[in-house]
Amino acid sequence: MIDVFTDVYFMKKALQEAEIAFEKGEIPVGAIIVVANKVIARTHNLTELLHDVTAHAEMQAITSAANFLGGKYLKDCTLYVTLEPCQMCAGALYWSQITKIVYGATDEARGFQKMGTQLHPKTQVVSGILEKECAELMRNFFKSRR
Amino acid sequence: MIDVFTDVYFMKKALQEAEIAFEKGEIPVGAIIVVANKVIARTHNLTELLHDVTAHAEMQAITSAANFLGGKYLKDCTLYVTLEPCQMCAGALYWSQITKIVYGATDEARGFQKMGTQLHPKTQVVSGILEKECAELMRNFFKSRR
Repeated sequence: MIDVFTDVYFMKKALQEAEIAFEKGEIPVGAIIVVANKVIARTHNLTELLHDVTAHAEMQAITSAANFLGGKYLKDCTLYVTLEPCQMCAGALYWSQITKIVYGATDEARGFQKMGTQLHPKTQVVSGILEKECAELMRNFFKSRR
Repeated sequence: MIDVFTDVYFMKKALQEAEIAFEKGEIPVGAIIVVANKVIARTHNLTELLHDVTAHAEMQAITSAANFLGGKYLKDCTLYVTLEPCQMCAGALYWSQITKIVYGATDEARGFQKMGTQLHPKTQVVSGILEKECAELMRNFFKSRR
């Protein structure tokens, strides 16, 4: 049997969220959280609309998933996010003890890997899923702003 | 003229917030944000009540202050917080470009200094204000939980 629930399958959904952010004039980052192949959170960056630096896609996804689960630990959950998380979001993911993080494009300037932010030892990280598509959306956004 | 608006004066207000958290069974951390000697945000840790790892006092204070100011940058603002911020909160403070951070007790295990989280180059940091009182409240909390 073919497994349709691949990392690419779920990253496409995160990318759809990023596209919604793009259309709203927000830096186009989208995120979803999945548990047992079920999407339990679906968010995109809203820092401009909310005038709030904490409104990154990942932060909203963590809050939303925890609300859904009724508990603060994101056990057996996977976050799919189109851009590498920043210090703040990686710090939140550390506290959540999330099982897996999958991101698309690398953030060379402010990504958590470059910044040296620590994740929880339990957390597995996969990168580069739909990297080209995720990075291209970011480039198009900044090009349209110039 | 005597300046009543000292760091100790404002840290006492953050400590009052921490005491409210304590009474609610939350890890007792309180925060306030001040601009021109006016308190524009007053928050305490709510991670247990909200089942949400992102509900640290500082995160709520950043959101609250930005709502009050109608903009996401916390220019000319000072955060007073009873415990040294973690990676997540320091990461959020980085994005906010806050002018000054004053904290009470040091978090030797998970504080941003130990973890190497970067603040914005514009941000000034003061530590150790009412350190003894802030640390004692934390110790009493964990003692009561044993």
